[in-house]
Amino acid sequence: MQLYSYFRSSASYRVRIALAWKRLDHDYLPVHLPRNEHHARGFAELTPHQQVPVLQDGDQVLTQSLAIIEYLEETHPMPPLLPADAAGRARVRALALNVACDIHPPANLRVLRYLLHDLNVGEERKDQWCLHWVQQGLQAMERQLARHPATGRYCHGNQPTLADVFLVPQMFNAQRIGCPLDALPTVRRITDACLQLPAFADAQPSACPDAA
Amino acid sequence: MQLYSYFRSSASYRVRIALAWKRLDHDYLPVHLPRNEHHARGFAELTPHQQVPVLQDGDQVLTQSLAIIEYLEETHPMPPLLPADAAGRARVRALALNVACDIHPPANLRVLRYLLHDLNVGEERKDQWCLHWVQQGLQAMERQLARHPATGRYCHGNQPTLADVFLVPQMFNAQRIGCPLDALPTVRRITDACLQLPAFADAQPSACPDAA
Repeated sequence: MQLYSYFRSSASYRVRIALAWKRLDHDYLPVHLPRNEHHARGFAELTPHQQVPVLQDGDQVLTQSLAIIEYLEETHPMPPLLPADAAGRARVRALALNVACDIHPPANLRVLRYLLHDLNVGEERKDQWCLHWVQQGLQAMERQLARHPATGRYCHGNQPTLADVFLVPQMFNAQRIGCPLDALPTVRRITDACLQLPAFADAQPSACPDAA
Repeated sequence: MQLYSYFRSSASYRVRIALAWKRLDHDYLPVHLPRNEHHARGFAELTPHQQVPVLQDGDQVLTQSLAIIEYLEETHPMPPLLPADAAGRARVRALALNVACDIHPPANLRVLRYLLHDLNVGEERKDQWCLHWVQQGLQAMERQLARHPATGRYCHGNQPTLADVFLVPQMFNAQRIGCPLDALPTVRRITDACLQLPAFADAQPSACPDAA
């Protein structure tokens, strides 16, 4: 398998964790987003989607981090990243989608570029925008995790799941942009627990071959 | 089952299609988003997520449209909304996630409110913002659908899938905001084919009990 990744892309980090958790050998192929390598001809021919991560498995070219990880879960079920029961799976997927659909997209690189270059909002209001969505989204995660009886050492019980795979990269992003984390005790506790696992720690941005 | 929905919410429309496709009886409980009923105390107690759709199945309170539909697929597999093979499932999920993660979130109600009330960009630039993300996202969908040998009468082969369930509500939104559709022949052809199916047509916004 070949993984096209950018070290700072939190969607790429999700797939790096899943590959590490399932101990799947792969080549790491860096795609430098600030230099627009995802729009370069060769990459656009591989994937008209023109985003990272992309996972190539034989002749399959897989896009969208959640679809890639669900594919890995189906083709390499052990060790699992989803619980066995349908209700538990729904809760774990919903927590992951909180990150994928609500927190991450407004602070995406192409959205920030539009704010700066098309709406001319300036750096300060661009940074406030990022903080707003990340802080509001992580507070919603905190409410959902702190109140729920299924929350354990990790987001769902005492084994890491898809929910943790999405939460931890988002927390790296939150720290990078200076988001206050004081009001997020459950989210922080779970993140710390995850980072004691090699699959989460070894896949972090600073450990990537393309890290500056 | 009880579905909490707002007629114009495209995420709610996705779940309405899935429930209709699988012929699952349910009560329809309207939540009026412009009147902020999703932040009202009763609803916030049901779900700290404070968004529609919510599906209640016995004592399970399910959030996030994709997680809800995956749950319905697992608990009521027939008729299916995912193909049988892992590669096909990955393609269908990636197409659905293009809508859920890339096209829909920047044009979400709370994002538009922030643009208007916090960034004061004005109505015209807010409308351009919406058009930009919807148009760019649907063009990416068109490239992925038009070029791929697995595209059939629907997004993936000749049976509707999760990808169609996400595409059709996005096309309703695109039409509502006046997005030009000329350059999207494949996307339009598939949408028209879906709307010939009662599950897609009967779940459309104007057919909902809370439609104006």
